[in-house]
Order: sequence, then C-alpha cells, then structure tokens
Amino acid sequence: MYRSHSCGELRPSDINKEVTLSGWVQKIRNKGFMIWVDLRDRYGITQLIFDEERTPVAVVEKAKTLGREFVIQIKGTVIERESKNKNIPTGDIEILVTDLNILNDAIVPPFTIEDETDGGEDIRMKYRYLDIRRNPVKNNLMFRHKVGMLVRNYLSNEGFIEVETPYLIKSTPEGARDFIVPSRMNEGQFYALPQSPQTFKQLLMVGGMDKYFQIVKCFRDEDLRADRQPEFTQIDCEMSFVEQEDILSIFENLTRHLIHEIKGVDISDFPRMTYDEAMRTYGNDKPDIRFGMKFGELNAVAKHKDFNVFNTAELVVGIAVPGGASYTRKEIDKLIDWVKRPQVGALGMVYVKCNEDGTYKSSVDKFYDQEDLAKWAETTGAQPGDLICVLSGETNKVRAQLSALRMELAERLELRNPEEFAPLWVVDFPLLEWDEDTQRYHAMHHPFTSPKPEDITLLDTDPGKVRANAYDLVLNGNEIGGGSIRIHDKETQALMFDHLGFTPEEAKAQFGFLMDAFQYGAPPHGGIAFGFDRLVSILGGQETIRDFIAFPKNNSGRDVMIDAPATIDQEQLKELHIKLSI
Amino acid sequence: MYRSHSCGELRPSDINKEVTLSGWVQKIRNKGFMIWVDLRDRYGITQLIFDEERTPVAVVEKAKTLGREFVIQIKGTVIERESKNKNIPTGDIEILVTDLNILNDAIVPPFTIEDETDGGEDIRMKYRYLDIRRNPVKNNLMFRHKVGMLVRNYLSNEGFIEVETPYLIKSTPEGARDFIVPSRMNEGQFYALPQSPQTFKQLLMVGGMDKYFQIVKCFRDEDLRADRQPEFTQIDCEMSFVEQEDILSIFENLTRHLIHEIKGVDISDFPRMTYDEAMRTYGNDKPDIRFGMKFGELNAVAKHKDFNVFNTAELVVGIAVPGGASYTRKEIDKLIDWVKRPQVGALGMVYVKCNEDGTYKSSVDKFYDQEDLAKWAETTGAQPGDLICVLSGETNKVRAQLSALRMELAERLELRNPEEFAPLWVVDFPLLEWDEDTQRYHAMHHPFTSPKPEDITLLDTDPGKVRANAYDLVLNGNEIGGGSIRIHDKETQALMFDHLGFTPEEAKAQFGFLMDAFQYGAPPHGGIAFGFDRLVSILGGQETIRDFIAFPKNNSGRDVMIDAPATIDQEQLKELHIKLSI
Repeated sequence: MYRSHSCGELRPSDINKEVTLSGWVQKIRNKGFMIWVDLRDRYGITQLIFDEERTPVAVVEKAKTLGREFVIQIKGTVIERESKNKNIPTGDIEILVTDLNILNDAIVPPFTIEDETDGGEDIRMKYRYLDIRRNPVKNNLMFRHKVGMLVRNYLSNEGFIEVETPYLIKSTPEGARDFIVPSRMNEGQFYALPQSPQTFKQLLMVGGMDKYFQIVKCFRDEDLRADRQPEFTQIDCEMSFVEQEDILSIFENLTRHLIHEIKGVDISDFPRMTYDEAMRTYGNDKPDIRFGMKFGELNAVAKHKDFNVFNTAELVVGIAVPGGASYTRKEIDKLIDWVKRPQVGALGMVYVKCNEDGTYKSSVDKFYDQEDLAKWAETTGAQPGDLICVLSGETNKVRAQLSALRMELAERLELRNPEEFAPLWVVDFPLLEWDEDTQRYHAMHHPFTSPKPEDITLLDTDPGKVRANAYDLVLNGNEIGGGSIRIHDKETQALMFDHLGFTPEEAKAQFGFLMDAFQYGAPPHGGIAFGFDRLVSILGGQETIRDFIAFPKNNSGRDVMIDAPATIDQEQLKELHIKLSI
Repeated sequence: MYRSHSCGELRPSDINKEVTLSGWVQKIRNKGFMIWVDLRDRYGITQLIFDEERTPVAVVEKAKTLGREFVIQIKGTVIERESKNKNIPTGDIEILVTDLNILNDAIVPPFTIEDETDGGEDIRMKYRYLDIRRNPVKNNLMFRHKVGMLVRNYLSNEGFIEVETPYLIKSTPEGARDFIVPSRMNEGQFYALPQSPQTFKQLLMVGGMDKYFQIVKCFRDEDLRADRQPEFTQIDCEMSFVEQEDILSIFENLTRHLIHEIKGVDISDFPRMTYDEAMRTYGNDKPDIRFGMKFGELNAVAKHKDFNVFNTAELVVGIAVPGGASYTRKEIDKLIDWVKRPQVGALGMVYVKCNEDGTYKSSVDKFYDQEDLAKWAETTGAQPGDLICVLSGETNKVRAQLSALRMELAERLELRNPEEFAPLWVVDFPLLEWDEDTQRYHAMHHPFTSPKPEDITLLDTDPGKVRANAYDLVLNGNEIGGGSIRIHDKETQALMFDHLGFTPEEAKAQFGFLMDAFQYGAPPHGGIAFGFDRLVSILGGQETIRDFIAFPKNNSGRDVMIDAPATIDQEQLKELHIKLSI
C-alpha cells in the first residue's frame, strides 16, 4: 500500500498515528540537524520532518539526496507542529519520518511548480503535464469536472437522456469548415467530424426521445482566433413539444442552479431583450448589462445642422461616460486615438463635456448650440460631469465601434463587478444574414432554425428582415448558449434550403435523411447548446478557455506537447486511397 | 403550452381534470360512434376517446383523418375507463377529447412501430429515427444513460476527476490502425483520432491528477468483425500510487454497485484466475464460469497407447458433457461435424460414453481399455451418464476449439442462467505475444504495461514467458474491462520499446513526450478501461452492442441513415493538401 492518507488529510486529531504518505517533494529546507520537506499530492501539502535525533541515520542520509519533484513514499508519526501554518488545512501537524522510499527521481523542471510560476505559456504548454501539477491549472480541471457533474445530474433529474451521437459523420458545405477523415473501407470517401450533433439530436426528437442532452466534443477547422480551439466541448440539448418559452425557462433554471451551487449566488432575474434592441442599445448581440452606458441614437437631434460628417452618416450614436467631463484634452485625444486604431476602425470621435454647471463644451461647438447638446445629453442619459462620446457612419460598423469603446471604458473605469452575474436572453435574432463574399444569404444560426410564422411572407420580399425563433443566453457579455425552435416540417425546411441557395438536389444529397424523417411524424422541437469551455471559464471567474482545457492546442492548431499533427507513412496514406498534393 | 401531462402520467386520481397531451398516434380503433386512439410519447401510452355524443362534431371529423404516427395535440377530460387495461400504468383512465390539433402528419412508416416489428435490421438502420420510437431501442438508450450516470456519480464520489483528453492527436504505428485527419493549417501533416486516451491519462498521472476517469469515444480503423464498431465508448480510468490490488478492489466495487443498482443483485465474490489457469481450464482468457465443463488435460493418460492421433498431438484435452451418454450415434456425429466446421477447425473428435453402470464405450475402444477411460473420466470430472468429448492437436488451437465446443454445448443445454452474474478477474497476462506475420513480439495489452519485476530477466532469454501486471475483468464470458499497472520509469519504458522492435529514434519520435515526462517525477500508476457499449449490453441482458448505440455503423463502417462516408469536393481536398490516389 503506497499510502494510508493523502497529503491533505491529516489533522491534530491524528497526532501519534503511524501513517504512510506518498507524493512529490514541493520544497526542502535544512536547518542544523533538521530537514523539512513539503510533500504534495492532489489533495494538499503535508510537512515532513527528518530529525537526526529521532529519524534513523540512513533515512536522513537518503533525505539529503532528495530534490524538487522527486516522488517519494514515507512512513512516520503524526506530531504537533511547533510553528503552525494557518494557511493550509494540515498546518497544525507534521510527520516525523521514520522511513523513506524514493519512488522516482526527477530532473529539474523547466519552470517552477508553484502557483505563480516563472514559465511562459509556450513552455508550460510543451510540458503541460508539469503545468497541471500547479494548483491554478489543477483546480481549473477539477472545477470543470464539478460543473460537468452538476450539469449532468441536473439535466438527468429533469428527465433529459444523454445520448451519444456519432463522431464519424458526413461533411456538409454549410457553415464552418469540417475536419474530414478518409475511409479505408469505402474507397474515395470521407467521414467528417461533427461541428455539432445538430441533425442527430433533431432525429432523436423525431425518434421520440423527447428530452436529449450530451456533453460532447465538436470540431471546426477554422483559422483560430485567440482563444478558439479546433476541438471544443458543448452541452447540447434538445426537447420536443416545446415553445421557446419552455426552453428559456428550463435553461435559466439550469444556469441558476449552477451559479447557486458554485457561487452561492441566487439569480432571480433573467431579463430578455430582442436582438434589435441589443444592437440599438449596446451595439452588440451579447451585451454586458452589469453596467449602463447605453447607446443614444442621435440622428434626430444631430442631422439638422451643417455638420456634414453627421449628415452623410447612416447612424450617429453616442454614450455617456460617467465622470468623463473631467478628462483632460490629452486624455480625450488618447481616447480618440484608441477608437481610430485599426482594430476599432472609427474615423474620428465627437465629444461633449457635460459641465457640472449644466453647460456643454463640445468638439463641434461650431455646428451645435447648447440646446442641441442638451438633447444629446438627454438621449444618451448623460449627467453633469459626464463625457458624451459620439461616433457616426454606417450603422453596423459604427455600432461595433461604439460597443468596443463602451467595453474599453468599462475596463478602464472598472464598471464591471467580477462577483456579479448578470444573465440576459437575447431573442428574435434575424433568420438570415447577407454575406458579401458569396453575395447570398446565410443562415445566422443554422439552416434548421425556424422563422417566426408572422415573418414567413417576408422571406420573398425582404429576407434580411425575417426574424427567427432563435435565442442566445448571454452572461456578463459572453454568449454562453444559443439555440432555436427548429423547423419540423419538410415544406418549410425545403423553403429554407431554397432561400439559402441550395438546389433541391443539393438539399436532398446533404440533408435528405432529415427531410425524409420529417415526413414520418416529426414533433415540434427546439434546443440549445452551451459552450462548455466558455461556461466553465466564466463560472470560474477567468477569461481564457485554454486554462480550463487539460491539453489545449495553440493558435496553429498544434498540440506542442505531443507534437501533433505530424507526417505519416506513405503506406498509411496508400491504404486510405489518398496522397499528398504538395 | 403543448402539454400539461405526459402520456405516461395520468392515473385515476386525475379523473375530471382538464388536460392537454401531445404525442404520436400509436393505434386507432373505430366502433359505432366511437374512435379510440392510443397516444404515445417517451413516457407511455394514454387512450383517447372521441365520442360523437360528447366530442364536438368537427373534432370527431378531424379524428377520422388521423393515421398511424401522426403527431397530435389534444385537450380533454380524464375519465374512468370502462374496460381497464392492467398492462399499462395509465390503463385505468382515458381522455374524453374535446379538441384536436394535428401538429404533423405522417406517411406510412416502412416498418411497424411496435415492440415486435416486421422490419429487418437493414431497413431499421436506414430509418433508425423510427426504430428509436420502438420501446426496445428507446429503453436500451435510456438504460445506457442510466448506467453512464451511475458510473459517473460512483467514480466522482470516489474522488475521480473526469478530464477530457484531446481527439485530434498523433498517429502511432503500434496497435490497431488509426483513423487520420489531414491538417489544413499544417501542410502535409495529419492528426489521428485516439484509439484510447492511454498516453494522456498517464500524463495526467505525471501531472498529479491522482484519480482520473472519462467516458470517452475511441476509434479503430479495423476490419469490422460482427458487433465491432469503428467508434466505440470506453470508461477510461487511471490512478496513482496504487498497486494492482488497489485497482481490482475499486473496480470490483464499481461493478458491484452497478449490478446492485440495476439488477438488485449483490455480488459477493470476485474470484481471480491467472491467464495460464484460464487457458488450461477453459481454453479461453475470458471464461464463462457460470457453468462447469472444465477442461481435463489427458496427455498423461492418453499418450501411452498406439493411437497415433494423440501420440503426435501437443495436447489431448477433454470435457464432460452432462447427460451426454444418452446421445444417439446421429447426435454425436452431428457434434463431430460441428467441431469440424471451418469456423471451429478441429480435424475430428474422440468421445467416451460414461454409462450409468460404470462402464465406458468410446470411439477409440480399439486403443484404450476401461481402465484408461476411467482415468479420462476422472481427469475431466465425468460422471456416469456423461459424454466425454476429446480433441487433440497444437495446444493453442485445440484449446480454442474445445472452448468453442464448450460454449456451444452450454447454449444447447441451457447451462447459463441469464439472471446470474459471475464476474472473474483474469490476471498475470503475458507481457508479449509472438506475431507470425511480422515475426516479432507485440505488446499483448499495450507497450506501457509493466512486466512483473521477478520476470524482467526473462525478457532477454524467453520473452514469451514474461508475465505482465495486467488484468481483465470478465463477466459471464465477456471481457468487460482490462488494464494494467504501467511502466513509470524511462529505463523500463525504453527497454520495452526495444523489445517491441522500436529503434531508440522511433521510440523518441512516437513517444518521446511520455519518456520525457517520466524524467520529471512520475508516480507509480495503473488503470483500467471498460468497454462501455459491451458493459451496457451485458447489464441489459442482451448480446448485441449495436442495440445499445443510437446511431451505429454497419459492418462496412457505413452509417446507412445519413449515407456516410461520402465523396467530398475537390476544393475541400485541395485545401487539405491531399488528393485521391485511386
């Protein structure tokens, strides 16, 4: 038996017990005839003492050969510690060692195995197995497990059945790029890895499964922006005989449950906002509503004068920065530079200082009088002492720019309370979005999302205006989940494929099995999927999903630890009926 | 709201309630002015009654248009049923319908949606979404979910952490064939899908995770024997600071827990048997010990006469068939034909009838006298009334043949109680096995399995004799789990790769990251993996894993429902830097 207790377990009530512990050497200190070793395992740290007066000489001699990260097993007696350490649960005791067994030695690790390490991200990823020994990473992985168990037990208790769907499926040209897998047994043919189990979960609904969920890996071969992974995990859910309201209700309860269990915080309110309102008010379909600075659209009160920049703009829109009236000229210039950075892309910024005395001082005083500016203040909700920042231009662009500015100011002004959880449902997403590249409409969510019945007639006249039965759950400015009520009849599905530019033949080749299925009695159904990596990182109070993934890939899609992807044998390619085309 | 209750929920205590139900039309019966409809959902069946005297005329007219598998929503009143159906929980009530809403119609399904269907396997797989509506399939999937939850909660409560390991990893030439995934971002390079998370779980042990598990998909591109799937699910576990005994103990407790929760049966005994003993006694490394018919090796008592067949054989071995002495000559000839089938491959069979009067009558009376045959009876444990079946030849082959005969007879004689659960640990597997094709040794489990310390010196002199710290959990003749204590030091791992025919360069290229990891303080560790598909099917009392997989593939690795794999665009191949070599 390697151990009688873990390194996090012993307490003063165990004093005088003979124990066996195993673990890693965290730290060694020598003083006179004494050697102290901090012994670490997943469960904690226990202090060992080798004392030349009480520990056998041979054991002490062996202890002198120990180095950091050696794996050892010791026997000894639990004794009271002289200088207690109140920071760790085992800090009242130590082990007087009587026997020492070196299970494995260790060369010096490439970075220190401490909560605060000297290792940069690259080296920590290459030696991820050492990084995982560090509390911050280890605790994140344990936290992820905890959240997974909470989700599974909650959904299972609610009657959801976890059904595993296949990983080797069929490539579809719709959506993101697929990873593909050549088939050896079916010459010239390929599987694809699923971007999500979307069609399978819908078929499970056709199959009467009623409530389905799965925590499942999904795959997208996209160019990796920061903090995206080619393989990611999704909490995937689907229900039958439901309307949007049923789904929102169940999954806000799940979210409530998670936040309650993890944070001890009870969320009462899950406000709802239409996509249109979110875009108008926050310039963003996943607004962080922990703070204000709502957009004020100024077209009506800014386009009546000779200021051509505004007059030619599609949208003039501003926000009120709390206390910003006190910014110096230099500070404001820096803000203007910030919005003109290529990543934001504004051409300029108009500002209005709302003085404490009720007067206004703006960068466009030449064009606008105090009465005009008072209306701007009213529209943006600016109070005396605030600074109004106004951007203008093409609606979508200017909203994105002002949203970026809003978030930047929230960061600078520390307007977001990290302990607050502010969820929000964004509903009534557009069904379609125009794609400039391909000059056609794409499904904003996916081609199985149902249009609102009252908007169906717009499909032919004004497709961009059709609203979908689609919803996103936003938490503190992050989209943590999204879903929709699906199309469940063959005719609407065919109509949808038609509007997405599929010929009937293409639709049949790609999704024939789904359209066939709809003929045999498909129930009304809908669902939602949560990005599990993101959900866990937000609940864990951190921003980077990579920190919550045991073995993440880097921005080139490489696993630098195992050095994958890699070249493979010609023989192997030949068996798969492919060759390189380099 | 689509429903106030499910179709399995209403009871006499609900009589007079106004309810709304949704579901599928299972059955329609007309009689006089009445129409009865069985309405089905996942939760059960509720009888609806449309009564021309009490249901609005328009609703009755609409009911007349219903067909099987239509999806409907009804409103009505719960009333007491006249002719009660004691076979279903809702059989005491029915719903007097007042309103009917046809949610979706249905064309006639290609097979009947009943527990006993007229559909063959092929058609049911093509329309798997309809097959899933049938109770046997639906219940299997729900059962699988239940087992999964039991496993997860049990392991989680035991301190195991579920950690997700990557699916896009690196191909290794060792073991079965990999599925590979071309990388778009890393030209000419490929990921592989994992055959198991073996190396990652070992790295998690190096990382101090201590107790890991994962219910995870694994992939093997093998020619598919009956009831093998290219993607399958594994309960994958690993622990640190453990010896073999610790692992056996924890996982027999898991197995006990599952059988207790699912079957209400308490298993006290988990016997252990060495691989050698299993092969000698049952000719098989996964013996079904629910019944006897143990092998009796007859070399010592059958090689002393002039019967050349036995004298030239490596092994002469027999089993006693209970009551077999009464078989007619014709029946015995049929048994001989059976062992001579190509699938079994015996050249012939010697038999001995053990008469009730204590005499023997054999097919080799010319060579052996009563005294000889008495010794055979003693060795095989044959009683008066039994038939001794004796095969001979090359040891491995003849054991396999006699094992096949033993199982066939158990089937015919109904010796296996389907309600009995007889687990068995088979331990001390050989480390290596000789491969005739490649003329070298292969790892019997995998190259990370540790040899027994006392056998290490045999590696150079008699590699086939080296025993491993490896174990299989066998349940009713099925291997449900297997694992080993791993190598945890670089030197032994290098030695192992060397014996498997890897050059140091090849070992480094393939598994360098693991050997590196072992330098930084690897703990002693070991683990086990359960075949989840198989485990669920055995606990479910069935034999075919396909019946417990929502969307299985056929023997050519095809998903006939979605028609995958499939050809893909040249454009897509080009992006991946590959082309077809057909």
